[in-house]
Amino acid sequence: MIVILKADTSQSEVEKIAKSIKSKGLQIHYSKGENFIILGLVGDTSSIDAAQIESNKNVERVMNVAEPFKKANKLFHPEPSIINVDGQKIGGNKLAIIAGPCSVETEEQILSVAKDVKKSGAGFLRGGAFKPRTSPYAFQGLKYEGLELLKKAKEKTGLPIVTEIMSPYDIEVFERDVDVIQVGARNMQNFDLLRELGKTKSTILLKRGLSATIEEWLMSAEYVMAGGNENVILCERGIRTFEKYTRNTLDLSAVLAIKKLSHLPVIVDPSHAAGKNWMVDSLSKAAIAVGADGLMIEVHNDPINALCDGAQSIKPDEFEKLMSELKLMANIIGRDI
Amino acid sequence: MIVILKADTSQSEVEKIAKSIKSKGLQIHYSKGENFIILGLVGDTSSIDAAQIESNKNVERVMNVAEPFKKANKLFHPEPSIINVDGQKIGGNKLAIIAGPCSVETEEQILSVAKDVKKSGAGFLRGGAFKPRTSPYAFQGLKYEGLELLKKAKEKTGLPIVTEIMSPYDIEVFERDVDVIQVGARNMQNFDLLRELGKTKSTILLKRGLSATIEEWLMSAEYVMAGGNENVILCERGIRTFEKYTRNTLDLSAVLAIKKLSHLPVIVDPSHAAGKNWMVDSLSKAAIAVGADGLMIEVHNDPINALCDGAQSIKPDEFEKLMSELKLMANIIGRDI
Amino acid sequence: MIVILKADTSQSEVEKIAKSIKSKGLQIHYSKGENFIILGLVGDTSSIDAAQIESNKNVERVMNVAEPFKKANKLFHPEPSIINVDGQKIGGNKLAIIAGPCSVETEEQILSVAKDVKKSGAGFLRGGAFKPRTSPYAFQGLKYEGLELLKKAKEKTGLPIVTEIMSPYDIEVFERDVDVIQVGARNMQNFDLLRELGKTKSTILLKRGLSATIEEWLMSAEYVMAGGNENVILCERGIRTFEKYTRNTLDLSAVLAIKKLSHLPVIVDPSHAAGKNWMVDSLSKAAIAVGADGLMIEVHNDPINALCDGAQSIKPDEFEKLMSELKLMANIIGRDI
Amino acid sequence: MIVILKADTSQSEVEKIAKSIKSKGLQIHYSKGENFIILGLVGDTSSIDAAQIESNKNVERVMNVAEPFKKANKLFHPEPSIINVDGQKIGGNKLAIIAGPCSVETEEQILSVAKDVKKSGAGFLRGGAFKPRTSPYAFQGLKYEGLELLKKAKEKTGLPIVTEIMSPYDIEVFERDVDVIQVGARNMQNFDLLRELGKTKSTILLKRGLSATIEEWLMSAEYVMAGGNENVILCERGIRTFEKYTRNTLDLSAVLAIKKLSHLPVIVDPSHAAGKNWMVDSLSKAAIAVGADGLMIEVHNDPINALCDGAQSIKPDEFEKLMSELKLMANIIGRDI
Repeated sequence: MIVILKADTSQSEVEKIAKSIKSKGLQIHYSKGENFIILGLVGDTSSIDAAQIESNKNVERVMNVAEPFKKANKLFHPEPSIINVDGQKIGGNKLAIIAGPCSVETEEQILSVAKDVKKSGAGFLRGGAFKPRTSPYAFQGLKYEGLELLKKAKEKTGLPIVTEIMSPYDIEVFERDVDVIQVGARNMQNFDLLRELGKTKSTILLKRGLSATIEEWLMSAEYVMAGGNENVILCERGIRTFEKYTRNTLDLSAVLAIKKLSHLPVIVDPSHAAGKNWMVDSLSKAAIAVGADGLMIEVHNDPINALCDGAQSIKPDEFEKLMSELKLMANIIGRDI
Repeated sequence: MIVILKADTSQSEVEKIAKSIKSKGLQIHYSKGENFIILGLVGDTSSIDAAQIESNKNVERVMNVAEPFKKANKLFHPEPSIINVDGQKIGGNKLAIIAGPCSVETEEQILSVAKDVKKSGAGFLRGGAFKPRTSPYAFQGLKYEGLELLKKAKEKTGLPIVTEIMSPYDIEVFERDVDVIQVGARNMQNFDLLRELGKTKSTILLKRGLSATIEEWLMSAEYVMAGGNENVILCERGIRTFEKYTRNTLDLSAVLAIKKLSHLPVIVDPSHAAGKNWMVDSLSKAAIAVGADGLMIEVHNDPINALCDGAQSIKPDEFEKLMSELKLMANIIGRDI
Repeated sequence: MIVILKADTSQSEVEKIAKSIKSKGLQIHYSKGENFIILGLVGDTSSIDAAQIESNKNVERVMNVAEPFKKANKLFHPEPSIINVDGQKIGGNKLAIIAGPCSVETEEQILSVAKDVKKSGAGFLRGGAFKPRTSPYAFQGLKYEGLELLKKAKEKTGLPIVTEIMSPYDIEVFERDVDVIQVGARNMQNFDLLRELGKTKSTILLKRGLSATIEEWLMSAEYVMAGGNENVILCERGIRTFEKYTRNTLDLSAVLAIKKLSHLPVIVDPSHAAGKNWMVDSLSKAAIAVGADGLMIEVHNDPINALCDGAQSIKPDEFEKLMSELKLMANIIGRDI
Repeated sequence: MIVILKADTSQSEVEKIAKSIKSKGLQIHYSKGENFIILGLVGDTSSIDAAQIESNKNVERVMNVAEPFKKANKLFHPEPSIINVDGQKIGGNKLAIIAGPCSVETEEQILSVAKDVKKSGAGFLRGGAFKPRTSPYAFQGLKYEGLELLKKAKEKTGLPIVTEIMSPYDIEVFERDVDVIQVGARNMQNFDLLRELGKTKSTILLKRGLSATIEEWLMSAEYVMAGGNENVILCERGIRTFEKYTRNTLDLSAVLAIKKLSHLPVIVDPSHAAGKNWMVDSLSKAAIAVGADGLMIEVHNDPINALCDGAQSIKPDEFEKLMSELKLMANIIGRDI
């Protein structure tokens, strides 16, 4: 951490600030420039609050040098993490393909889609039981009934279940019934929920918030990990920008940034990013090409009558064709599906 | 709602789409342009899912005409709502001034600040007991002990308490002890929490999410109101943009938009918006000038040693001076403090 | 175009508005809903100013149905445009690879890089002679001397030249000496320059503005095309968002949007998008995978001592390796390099 | 400037980097932390290219301490600049009120509006002769004929003229006929135009670009000033964000930032920011309250039939009422109109 002081800060004031910093067990390197005095803080700065130091009128700015995340940081864990989910691995050479409908609607629907995506080579089944909807008047999901249907689909296909949690009240049920607990974009900074999930041993799929920086996203992973649960998978799903042609702007360079900064696996959700089913094919290929550890794709047997987000779902036959093309793409960059 | 079809959509396909829409009790006005066919939907479209219609390949676009919010909509409630909090009114001619520290730290601190802001004319005391922090390693608030200290401060000063809730588990305690329950920006779309708060009779202060559109913000208010609790106050606190000189970009035109679209009161938090205490004075004046129903201002007796967000807090004497100037400002636009 | 009127608009006012619209040669379809009156305008609405109609107090909103661009619109030109540049084609099956240094610095440098990228399979040489720099004190390019060096490099390698224009005064020289005239992101809405370039027959490479919507970008292409010059190539180079880890956020879904809306070729510049040379490899692959018609990549023989943007340049040997991998990637999606 | 090196950088590599920096006349302060080596550069760093240093693989990051603008910097010019325009002053205690139509349309229109705004107390007349329009098919302004009409309006009213330049070809005419030459948001980084304007002695009104940071905006002012013309006025006119209810998001905290960083006067354009005439009144008041040095307001005698941007223009009688209220507002904060 670096503290920039105004050049006209009095010597006694500099010493006062330095003393307060040293009292936290840090060393200080001092240098005086033409227009500024610079204090370089050496030691563990994770408990130092930059904003607090900045409230001193003599302080021009405080700059962080070290990243604020620890357990999620590649610096202290150079090897990529590989997460085991019910016998399958996420984060290694094999790409994780999660597919299924936005919402679980009926037994027939979820079984049909589950069999189809399994046949095409998907490794995981997604399906929303509890749905976060912008409008309180929109379909909110089948809830516990939806979870039961997902369990049936798992029985039939063997595919591990990925589904979203919305309330800390449901953690016990999810721990028991769900293989990968998804935290949605809107809850990425629901710190209460993250903290509770940190006490479980479940695998957590943490979606990036609509306008979360990469650092904030990793700090939310850190919330779960700080509680003792290091089974965290990140999911890029598009960020909010001024461009409105697509629902969100898929940020594929974020995949590269995560790979540089962290050891956690990162997958991509092209369906929610674009909000347009005709973009899913090409964006999936691009996500594999850029180096994502997997994909989360919405597949629905009847998108036009889907109860939610039909516009971004592809059909099982489109998914099958896509999977065969993704295999070629994966091979080129030395990975498997 | 307006559905735009491609010009080459077959007559039978148009009829199929029309039939499906009519089955939901709506009428259709048909017009054929050069490059598009346009269906105007007349009736209550609130249960229609635009995205679902858009998943039909013949559909070019679906446009909403009516706003999706009902109970928060000015169209159906032209008079501004005035909310009663422990004898005080928010939303009427008198501006609501909420002041206090970011975090409750000690009994001495909260009592001292509470007395000071009361003396200067504040109507409400703010103070965080449960703190949402980006880092799990940062100070997370005094929690229930903090609530107790707020209650003591209320006993001494009579100021109603405004404080943030983070977990649905705490609703019962907050209903009993807190006058205005704040939902923070990061939880604006924590729909589970909103729904639970909709079952209470407490006054809810709903902060705008970091990248929430005005419509989404009103839809989150609608979540609370749909549950039966219409005591909602909105709070603009800056949005996330590319500009990083300020922590967020205060969007004062949002105050005007809310006044046009909704009957709910809207206040402004200049402290969190700017993240710089030297901006609070001028931004507060601008917020009053633009027509906000009140302000939420961070005041701390010792900002340099504050446990959180000291950089954005002003001192009691600065607050006193600001209040006297705000009174003049309020009078000019025909309001009181 | 659709005009939404308030439901309480008087009949005489509706007729007045309708009359004014009809006077511009348009037909009107009228429908009255519960809360709104809707006028559907049929005919050529390109000369209608939506903002002007919206200034009428009875008008709630005006919505565009048709896209405002004509010559760039795929609707009127369904086949993709293929642009001939000095014997090479851009927009067809073969991908256009443009490579070279950010700035032309010395004869030795530009010849060396040109030979290297030619050897690795690049089809075009890029190199800045006139440099748009945020600071007036930064290196501004070798200017006309730089153009002369580019010409020498073309003589030696046969590679057509791509370089940026900054002033309308230079159009004559560029028309004579340059094969593809680049309009930089900061000049995307320099309408004066676009209009002048529309009078030439040169190929124009139009970069997307830092915060330009896809529609605005196509409207800028329309400026050039409206003048009679239809040789326009679009270049996605990242947009400005709240995320600051990368210099810009590469928007690969924009490539898909352009392909849907327009017949113009679109290429991708991963170097400027990310601002980090270690991201160029993977982002290039993703751009090819998503369906871009080519790439513009910064290659420098000595990035550390480059006079500009060394941080985003890759070395000739890295470029060679990348090209061999891009060929495999292109083949998979049925294209060539 | 601070250079952060990776902790495992070899001693010889550190020395190599240090030597290269010292060769530019700078001193280095060295400090070694746990995870990083930090070099503090002391001296004039304005010629150092941070991106170039960052291209060294051992460099983790380069951080600027000093602001890159010099002539625009308050540090070297603590007193606010006051600019004289034809006998009037901008930047002092008296607020500059610039009013008039978006476009000059007819002699009758411009004379009528000019007289009206003069009567209400405006100090300057605005009116577009050359109009930057997103569409090449939209009205582009009366051009030179428009300038002539502005001159007539000046003759009749004495109001100095503010109008936008789009091409360097027009500088000679503008220098002769125009009092304040406006550079529009889309040309804020048209460096060629800025450089040419730096050679004149005219007053330049520099609008903030759609997505320009405050620093970039000041760097564009620096372009003009570096050429020798220090008569620069800044104009905040809203930035592009995800929020689409308003055309742009007016960033009033930018006014405070400019006042902190620079000595240049800064005014606010509420009309273009909001794009809605019913917001102009309140946003104008907020701009004065926050401390802007003036306002630029669109006034049109017949907004519904305006040839451009009628939706954001207010009528002369609304302007008159607004001016009387702004006077009260100005007095409260100790300024005059």
